[in-house]
Amino acid sequence: EIDFNLAAIYVSDAQYNRNVYFDTLPQAVRLYMLYNHWALKVLLYFFMLVNLSLAIFEDPAVYPLPIWATMLVEILCLLIFTIRLIHYAKVILRDKFWKDPKNICIIVILTLTLVDMIIYGALKAANYYGVRWSRVLRPLLLVNVTEGRQLRRAFRSIRNALPQIFYVFMLFMFSILIFSLMALKLLGKRGLTNINGTPYFTSYLEIMFDLYVLVTTANSPDVMMPAYNANFFFAVFFIVYILINTYIFMSVFLAVVYNSYKKYLKEEVRQLVRAKRHKMVRAFGVLQEQREEGGEPVVTQASWNQLVRLVQPNLSNAHRELLWSVSDDKNQGVAFVQLADLLNIEIITIKSRPHPLQSLCPSLYQSAPSKLLCQLVQHRAFVMVYDLIILVNAVFIGLDEENPMIANSEWVFLALYILEILLKLYVFEPRVFFSKHSFWNWFDTIIVISALIATIINSVMKSSSHFSSRQILDIVFILRVLRLIRVVDSIKRFRIIINTLIRIGPAILTFGQLIIVVYYIFAMVGMELFKGKVTFYEQSSTNLAKAYCGNPLLNGTDFAKLNYCKNNFNNVVSSFILLVELTVVNQWHDILYGFATVTHISARIFFVLFHIIVVIVILNIFVAFVLEAFFVEYSVDKSDLQTSLERKIEELELAVAQYVTLQRVVSGGPIEWVG
Amino acid sequence: EIDFNLAAIYVSDAQYNRNVYFDTLPQAVRLYMLYNHWALKVLLYFFMLVNLSLAIFEDPAVYPLPIWATMLVEILCLLIFTIRLIHYAKVILRDKFWKDPKNICIIVILTLTLVDMIIYGALKAANYYGVRWSRVLRPLLLVNVTEGRQLRRAFRSIRNALPQIFYVFMLFMFSILIFSLMALKLLGKRGLTNINGTPYFTSYLEIMFDLYVLVTTANSPDVMMPAYNANFFFAVFFIVYILINTYIFMSVFLAVVYNSYKKYLKEEVRQLVRAKRHKMVRAFGVLQEQREEGGEPVVTQASWNQLVRLVQPNLSNAHRELLWSVSDDKNQGVAFVQLADLLNIEIITIKSRPHPLQSLCPSLYQSAPSKLLCQLVQHRAFVMVYDLIILVNAVFIGLDEENPMIANSEWVFLALYILEILLKLYVFEPRVFFSKHSFWNWFDTIIVISALIATIINSVMKSSSHFSSRQILDIVFILRVLRLIRVVDSIKRFRIIINTLIRIGPAILTFGQLIIVVYYIFAMVGMELFKGKVTFYEQSSTNLAKAYCGNPLLNGTDFAKLNYCKNNFNNVVSSFILLVELTVVNQWHDILYGFATVTHISARIFFVLFHIIVVIVILNIFVAFVLEAFFVEYSVDKSDLQTSLERKIEELELAVAQYVTLQRVVSGGPIEWVG
Repeated sequence: EIDFNLAAIYVSDAQYNRNVYFDTLPQAVRLYMLYNHWALKVLLYFFMLVNLSLAIFEDPAVYPLPIWATMLVEILCLLIFTIRLIHYAKVILRDKFWKDPKNICIIVILTLTLVDMIIYGALKAANYYGVRWSRVLRPLLLVNVTEGRQLRRAFRSIRNALPQIFYVFMLFMFSILIFSLMALKLLGKRGLTNINGTPYFTSYLEIMFDLYVLVTTANSPDVMMPAYNANFFFAVFFIVYILINTYIFMSVFLAVVYNSYKKYLKEEVRQLVRAKRHKMVRAFGVLQEQREEGGEPVVTQASWNQLVRLVQPNLSNAHRELLWSVSDDKNQGVAFVQLADLLNIEIITIKSRPHPLQSLCPSLYQSAPSKLLCQLVQHRAFVMVYDLIILVNAVFIGLDEENPMIANSEWVFLALYILEILLKLYVFEPRVFFSKHSFWNWFDTIIVISALIATIINSVMKSSSHFSSRQILDIVFILRVLRLIRVVDSIKRFRIIINTLIRIGPAILTFGQLIIVVYYIFAMVGMELFKGKVTFYEQSSTNLAKAYCGNPLLNGTDFAKLNYCKNNFNNVVSSFILLVELTVVNQWHDILYGFATVTHISARIFFVLFHIIVVIVILNIFVAFVLEAFFVEYSVDKSDLQTSLERKIEELELAVAQYVTLQRVVSGGPIEWVG
Repeated sequence: EIDFNLAAIYVSDAQYNRNVYFDTLPQAVRLYMLYNHWALKVLLYFFMLVNLSLAIFEDPAVYPLPIWATMLVEILCLLIFTIRLIHYAKVILRDKFWKDPKNICIIVILTLTLVDMIIYGALKAANYYGVRWSRVLRPLLLVNVTEGRQLRRAFRSIRNALPQIFYVFMLFMFSILIFSLMALKLLGKRGLTNINGTPYFTSYLEIMFDLYVLVTTANSPDVMMPAYNANFFFAVFFIVYILINTYIFMSVFLAVVYNSYKKYLKEEVRQLVRAKRHKMVRAFGVLQEQREEGGEPVVTQASWNQLVRLVQPNLSNAHRELLWSVSDDKNQGVAFVQLADLLNIEIITIKSRPHPLQSLCPSLYQSAPSKLLCQLVQHRAFVMVYDLIILVNAVFIGLDEENPMIANSEWVFLALYILEILLKLYVFEPRVFFSKHSFWNWFDTIIVISALIATIINSVMKSSSHFSSRQILDIVFILRVLRLIRVVDSIKRFRIIINTLIRIGPAILTFGQLIIVVYYIFAMVGMELFKGKVTFYEQSSTNLAKAYCGNPLLNGTDFAKLNYCKNNFNNVVSSFILLVELTVVNQWHDILYGFATVTHISARIFFVLFHIIVVIVILNIFVAFVLEAFFVEYSVDKSDLQTSLERKIEELELAVAQYVTLQRVVSGGPIEWVG
């Protein structure tokens, strides 16, 4: 009566680095297995997305919906989150539940949201002005759910870097203060004027702000020009300023963030490894049997098989036997602990079975012309010919598609690409061609087939109604251009870089979540502060207010002159796009001045805060992360486990895949194995 | 008859990492010692500076001088460089001289310069148009002289990173090409217009260029606005573009540069250590004596002393004895090899001698009030009171100095600062107070005394002629503000950061040289291409051409509107300032469009090339360098040698300095020793 469920849970927790102190009673274990079911997770994230998307429909809305509709959906979301939390509470030990700050956070967020909804509903019903302040809490759910492990780690790495950043930031601010004072003394009394005739560098606060903006380089060289025009020695002042504050301090910020990131990463990995070992030891404890009196406790192959079948049901028998042969060491306890890592090493079991056509009509497939064809397709020249075709295609795409010759050439190229895929399918076993890691094969096929469909739809529409849909045409164009990307795969150096980027992709997605959390909060606050202050008029509008974005205060400002009216906080989509522009930093001071003009000078605080949090802290963490990820990937050595697995595969006299040229698998990633 | 000169040369070559294959004949050795004399080096660098500064006086000149004058000075410079080279040729082995590419480089540069001068002189004499093209070669002398070791290393680290950068750059350009094609297809036919009414995104080359500029963020969000105004989905295109090309690719550039920098640094350090050991072994070989038949060869203390006296004449006897006690190991050969490193470890020999006042009038200095005063000055509160004074001073500086009360308060503050220095000099031994590493003491004293002198001159001028010189006043203001910086030294966290920055300072200077070499070349080329195309008119000028920088082609362009007329290549100083602006990147496209308008569209190549070389390559190396330097300094562990020296100091029962609080020495740097 071994509790296989319990052991399997330990192993899969170890495999996915889950640290949940679940109850070990059989019923709780079953509940926990349900809790980890992928469908429930997808459901949770779906409602998370719905909850976040509500901002599109709530005032200020992109597509307005009545309040009761959005409220109803929100209540549904809250309900789902509550159920999920109750499920979690049933799974884990009661005292652990109440000690975990993230559970408390979720409860607080849900309660506050409910309270806010009631207040807001009541205020609206009584026709009062209300603010849905609890909307800023929504993205915090993403961080606090059990599945938000990676995201929490990213936030933790920021929190860890903060004390260090703080001191450098203080010094940096001190430097700005000193330089501002110097600028005031040197330039304030010279009677210089800005380009628009206003006095130059006369107010200390304004100078401080201008110099802060100069650190971001957004107002360079304009801020320097009046002084430089007066005397070129003043340029030296600004050059020294930029050198110290933009180059040295910004590098020091990166250095400090990167340093704390590396230090923290090491500690984190160490903890993860410890927790993993701990769980595997527990799993071993559950499975072990005393084979003989006084002997070492062991795990039999039968229980081992049952365990692995439970943990990873879709593993082939051959693969499982391979893993057992690696695990069945003299010191079984130690070998068992590796199982979680072993399961995480991807092994592509390339079935060395023959091509389906060979079974269907062997005489034809084995004939001399057919063999010649196979050789041709596998030849280097084949790849080069198609690279050439892609280049010619690129030129044709660049030419005017109104020309009927050019428009028809598209069919030729489409036919050529489809021919390529068919030829490859003729030569290579389809299951190998479309294996999970053949990124470029999938990419090619999807792009070419989509392009075919879109082109057909387009030409059908054109011939039937003499009118081609702009949207369809856009999609066709995008697909055509995307097809060209494939050419990079032919150059080995490029492939290495691209593969590195693809591999750090998932981790970049974690950063994407982090950015969305921060953006969402700023978007909600920004919308409350600035909604409706700036209006965008369509190109075709003849409204005179168009020249000043519908707000007379903006008349003659750079904001209006640069036609920035659409950069506003009037709905959540505009807000997000505006926040991206603020992250890019350039011209952010014009945007900021615009919003400060239509509201109050203190509106600057919002923008400066955004700059400090997103650009100085988060973007530096992002760069630190890309740097570290790149170094790790560049110096990719296979782990000991991977090598021992490979040795085992060879020992077992299983030929290591020879299909490397065909495979186009992500290099250095999974192990190939002809099973 | 030991050749002490030869041994000393080996040791000092090892100490300063010189790799010169000099002739070991006594005469050549003496010549080599002369070659290494500091005065000759200073002379060389002085004439290097003169040679580079000629650009200020040559056409297009800041201060024009007749051609014969600059030519005469240049010939003098060339003569000095030739003499220096001949001196070097006499020192080293003949075949080594001709095998060394840097000697060949110098000869080629000198010859080409001479040829160019003759041609130019002849052309000018015949009143033809001539170009002084050899001016771009001038800064290359900085790189190729024997002393330019650090600079060559910096260039080598760039050269080593190039192959890696090249592939990423190709991929990056490919990405721009693909996005440009997509932009052309998506946006080219929509009839959109830029803010000035020109068609938007219709030419492939223009799109490519605009998107390249977008990577530098200089035209964000303006380049996106027309498309975004038409449909907000197009913003997605630009956001994806920025994400991939600005954030990911730029991080990858940094990662690649940093990676190759680190790898190369390790290799470089390994080679340096090997070369150093090799030289020390040779020095040992020269000095060793066979004390007894068949015994180990040893270096006697007498020869050792003579050697060290030759290498470092200003070392105190106590210090030399300390070093001997560290070196006099059983395994003398190994210990001897460390000598070069030992000499490089700075030891501050704090003479524990009494305060001069104590010797002069001991009764007064030892009296109770005097002792109380000493205690007061050494108390924490003393520092805090002065920090407070500095803060109050900052407020006073910020106020209007026209107010007589404020103007007079300056005398009070000056008196307070002088009092502080005098008090400290009363308490601490002056030689300790002004020791080499007491950065802040030196800083304080110099600033305060300069401020005193400048303020006196200013008030004398004011009272005598009722007119204060603007320049003197500017200096007074700068000194006053600089005085405030001292406050950061009171906060420990700040001190650590500042000290780190001070310590990486010398290496940043090497980068400064590198930047000057590159800037100088670009300035010379830029001046030939763009001189006189744009004219700057003084503020007071009433010339109508002022509105378009004296060039009708610029009428109505952003360049003229933004008042960028002084951003020109009309002389070497303007050129350098303009190149700094281009390095900062912001608005570089407006500057570039300006110069392309007044010359030819291909002028863009000059600016893009500058961007690629300086911003993508050199600045990334700079950041990589700051990162690495910061990590090394942050994780500063004393080397084994330093610890063994410290242990020895303690063993010898010499008290380790107790003056740490007083010292304010660069933390973690030199060892203090009360000898």
